[in-house]
Amino acid sequence: VNRFSLNHATTKYWNQTEAIHACARHDVGIGLWREPVAEAGLAATAKLIRDAGVTVTSLCRGGFLTSGEQAALDDNRRAIDEAAALGAAELVLVCGGIPDGSRDVDGARAAVADALAELAPYAGQCGVRLAVEPLHPMFAADRCVISTLDQALQLAEMFPAEQVGVVVDTYHSWWDPQVYQGIAAAGAAGRIACFQVADWITPLPAGVLTGRGQLGDGCVELRRFRIAVDAAGYTGPIEVEIFNDQLWARPGPDVFAETLQRFAEHVA
Amino acid sequence: VNRFSLNHATTKYWNQTEAIHACARHDVGIGLWREPVAEAGLAATAKLIRDAGVTVTSLCRGGFLTSGEQAALDDNRRAIDEAAALGAAELVLVCGGIPDGSRDVDGARAAVADALAELAPYAGQCGVRLAVEPLHPMFAADRCVISTLDQALQLAEMFPAEQVGVVVDTYHSWWDPQVYQGIAAAGAAGRIACFQVADWITPLPAGVLTGRGQLGDGCVELRRFRIAVDAAGYTGPIEVEIFNDQLWARPGPDVFAETLQRFAEHVA
Repeated sequence: VNRFSLNHATTKYWNQTEAIHACARHDVGIGLWREPVAEAGLAATAKLIRDAGVTVTSLCRGGFLTSGEQAALDDNRRAIDEAAALGAAELVLVCGGIPDGSRDVDGARAAVADALAELAPYAGQCGVRLAVEPLHPMFAADRCVISTLDQALQLAEMFPAEQVGVVVDTYHSWWDPQVYQGIAAAGAAGRIACFQVADWITPLPAGVLTGRGQLGDGCVELRRFRIAVDAAGYTGPIEVEIFNDQLWARPGPDVFAETLQRFAEHVA
Repeated sequence: VNRFSLNHATTKYWNQTEAIHACARHDVGIGLWREPVAEAGLAATAKLIRDAGVTVTSLCRGGFLTSGEQAALDDNRRAIDEAAALGAAELVLVCGGIPDGSRDVDGARAAVADALAELAPYAGQCGVRLAVEPLHPMFAADRCVISTLDQALQLAEMFPAEQVGVVVDTYHSWWDPQVYQGIAAAGAAGRIACFQVADWITPLPAGVLTGRGQLGDGCVELRRFRIAVDAAGYTGPIEVEIFNDQLWARPGPDVFAETLQRFAEHVA
């Protein structure tokens, strides 16, 4: 169980300080989000984390790099700084969709590679790895033009392994007939930066963002993923990241306890 | 424009007889659906089609083969019979999702292959080709475990080319970084059974089934697809199949006219 990490988005409306203290009590890690960190204050959060002895397994998130705008690069440099300040070794990137009015998916993908070329050396200097997350293809238009683990890996491999890795996420990749080969390849290349788990349930809600399933509620072979990621040589934390309106409506401690139990049943 | 075919689902609530007459007047094909055909009567529809001189470019749909149940095979044999009666050379298959309570995506995929082995020879005897349609991965759990053109092609190639082909559908496959290679491969193998077009728009509605975009309203490179499919040697009809609540709320003749115009602007 000590590979468990609570991605704070699973308990989105649970006060971040309380969530950090709960993770400390359970000796598990936490994945933080920039907005609540900013709200609590970056330095204060970093001190709280150090005092609590909790590992920040990732910071979510940078990215949105497809517009080619300087402001996006600047914002990602700030995200790298924040990850470094929090002692988070991995900054998760949601790379961005197709810019408004464009139909150029190849161009958007090329813009991601160009932006990574700008950002990767800086991340490396800061001791932070950029973790490229392939998002489910239903997000390709508006959130992330990187849809498969293979794509993410090809992108990452343009840069040194200590600068750019990939995220394996069961929710985004379970449907992919190539995913287990991709996990093996990413592991062999030392590129698995982050492993996130959530289940897939239907029907999807409008907007499809907040329809992820609690572990065990859906059709994903979560344990098969975990075994594959282990077999690929990954020994790091396993973040549970579930965007779900019903979970968000419940008290954070309840959801945290349930998620720990489901993790033991369905992942560990 | 004479490669245009109106998939009747684009004008779902337009009386089928009226739609057939409109297609006859415009000298374009039509893709029919089993339920309205049954409602109008199979023999009556077949006669109407012959008398009108309209080509039935496909019958939608068979499939839902992942349960392994005999009833599904029987229903698909009836669908093949119906396609033959209508003179439809292609029967589109939506292969089915993961059975309730199962997490065995590989097993579901294997069940599709097993079912095709039962059905393909019969289809061949009837002069009907089974057109395996890869559906967008957001449907993998509940509608179709075949998510990419590559997967569909691998499945089809287990059988003779005159018995099983694949559907290229812009809506389902536009996000796929391998799709243009897949189109070339499918064309070279003589496996493109059907080419369907719709655009991708966001946000997706709840259930995600009825959120397809009118041609030109979204981010899909429709003309690039058409050129790629042409270059792969496909010279058949191009079906416009758009599931969209707003289109369905409008009069069929208006939507038909608009769709013809959009097709000329964005596809032809």
